[in-house]
Amino acid sequence: MGKDPSVTVGELGEGRVLQRVLAQLRPAETAVLGPGDDCAVMRVQGDLVVTSDTMIEGPDFRRAWHSGFELGWKLAATNLSDVAAMGARPTGLTVSLAVPRDTPVILLEEIAAGLTAACDAMAPGCGVVGGDLGTAPVITAAVTALGDLEGRPAITRSGAKPGDQLAYAGDLGLAGLGLSLLFAEACDEGVAHSRTLPELWQRQPEMLAAQLAPTPPIPLGIVAAGSATAMMDVSDSLSLDAERLAKASGVAIQLDSALLAAAFGDQGGVPVPVAAMLTGGEDHGLLATFPAGAVLPAGFRRIGVVQEVTVGGTALQLDADAYEAKGWDPYTVQLPGQ
Amino acid sequence: MGKDPSVTVGELGEGRVLQRVLAQLRPAETAVLGPGDDCAVMRVQGDLVVTSDTMIEGPDFRRAWHSGFELGWKLAATNLSDVAAMGARPTGLTVSLAVPRDTPVILLEEIAAGLTAACDAMAPGCGVVGGDLGTAPVITAAVTALGDLEGRPAITRSGAKPGDQLAYAGDLGLAGLGLSLLFAEACDEGVAHSRTLPELWQRQPEMLAAQLAPTPPIPLGIVAAGSATAMMDVSDSLSLDAERLAKASGVAIQLDSALLAAAFGDQGGVPVPVAAMLTGGEDHGLLATFPAGAVLPAGFRRIGVVQEVTVGGTALQLDADAYEAKGWDPYTVQLPGQ
Repeated sequence: MGKDPSVTVGELGEGRVLQRVLAQLRPAETAVLGPGDDCAVMRVQGDLVVTSDTMIEGPDFRRAWHSGFELGWKLAATNLSDVAAMGARPTGLTVSLAVPRDTPVILLEEIAAGLTAACDAMAPGCGVVGGDLGTAPVITAAVTALGDLEGRPAITRSGAKPGDQLAYAGDLGLAGLGLSLLFAEACDEGVAHSRTLPELWQRQPEMLAAQLAPTPPIPLGIVAAGSATAMMDVSDSLSLDAERLAKASGVAIQLDSALLAAAFGDQGGVPVPVAAMLTGGEDHGLLATFPAGAVLPAGFRRIGVVQEVTVGGTALQLDADAYEAKGWDPYTVQLPGQ
Repeated sequence: MGKDPSVTVGELGEGRVLQRVLAQLRPAETAVLGPGDDCAVMRVQGDLVVTSDTMIEGPDFRRAWHSGFELGWKLAATNLSDVAAMGARPTGLTVSLAVPRDTPVILLEEIAAGLTAACDAMAPGCGVVGGDLGTAPVITAAVTALGDLEGRPAITRSGAKPGDQLAYAGDLGLAGLGLSLLFAEACDEGVAHSRTLPELWQRQPEMLAAQLAPTPPIPLGIVAAGSATAMMDVSDSLSLDAERLAKASGVAIQLDSALLAAAFGDQGGVPVPVAAMLTGGEDHGLLATFPAGAVLPAGFRRIGVVQEVTVGGTALQLDADAYEAKGWDPYTVQLPGQ
């Protein structure tokens, strides 16, 4: 059937779909045995880190907005950022894709190409080592990412100490602005459409890229691991995740709006309000704490300070005031069109 | 809200759903850091094996037939069997669960309890180390299983040699018979119902258990690794998977109907026809090859022989005749009710 773009997975069958998907992948450097057996086999140097994340058509992405390539890229990026946040080197991904039977095979090939390109760009040597294919009423992509600590201790979210500097690396708030833009200008009565996408890409390329195919600073995870006392990736929002880090460490965090505005108020020419930085979500940059006085690794910008928890005090402040964290909760947030 | 069985995940929100799910889990022995950070961290001795498998409501299971506990058990069992098939010790699982907002929280707790019980029964020391929660139109469970080869080489499907004995350990054909029984007696016009389930459980407990909550012989994977030349788990059907092993090894496989009938014709008092053994699927037992003359590890039964590929010959024979492999293809098999 060659490359007829209309051929569906139901017409081609699992074996041949798998062949076409595998052709878009590249072996992981540490894989002794890649896809095709009951398991992949990987050589490991230090402790292993592992994380899983799923993206489902509807709550997590829309086909009207995401190309297959962007979806694959985002799948890789959002999982690689969790590996980076431990101070580990990403080594492999497993990808389970379940799609409706009438899904064009080419979409799965594009997803695989996006996964490969994202690994090449952000985590060279990392690749897809396994996974499975199946059917589902909507496109369902579950990714597990593996990483190697190579003898270093893991950087958790529980190591922040009063007096530490709070710092962030990566885009901040752009992804949330991109999502708002898509809902405002690429939706009719709650239904996503792609009619205005080309114009939006021209007008706000940074916002759309941050939302649809983010590029978190993965290599900075290992760099930061040399001096960070705590680290995590920001996935639900800076405020929610800073509060989580504070609670896990038994400290309070004071975010500084002036530092935020100075460091991230202009991102590639795009003005980003502090409120968008605090509540946007899906940034996937690295939030880390470093000892007072330490020189921050290149790429990290100071955005606040770690403090003692005071009796009756809050875990999170913005400047002098308590700040109620806001962001993404998959079970309670109701998106348009659902 | 206590344990009101009607509370839904949408009412409770992600944080508290996660707390209730985590309370049903147990730490993995090799986990340095369990769920709650960006990644879990695991200590590893030898090469790592990793596999992923997804179960989706509809094509892979029905809530009318599967309790949450059985679903969790089956999720663990089907992934652990892939780890065992490499000759590795299962060490950890990650579980991504996405469910509709109106799903009772108690169902997620039952799934978690089933995962824990299955690990305790089949792979002591293994536990859930991470995962994520999300929303989806139907229950979607993606599991990744990790295992440690502990210095042993992996047993792949490509090492079978002409002259080797072919052997199998585990239930064979029962799971497929169980599925046929459910379709025949617990379906009305293609829609699954549970009205007849108690009676079916009483009448055919082995078939239903094999289908709904299988117990593959996980510990035999490490035992077999001492002498097996090739190994894999049988997931789609004995005939399909034997043919895959033959092709991966560049050999032909001759299944022996008399050996099959003698070894697996009576399973716990249930008569199983050879045709059901060959095409049933979802057995998750271990198919392995051992050198001619080797004593088979306890639990394995001889079911055939590995042969040279002959010019124009087939990869799979049953007795003296070519056998066309049949079983499960997720994209082309159309189940009732879909």
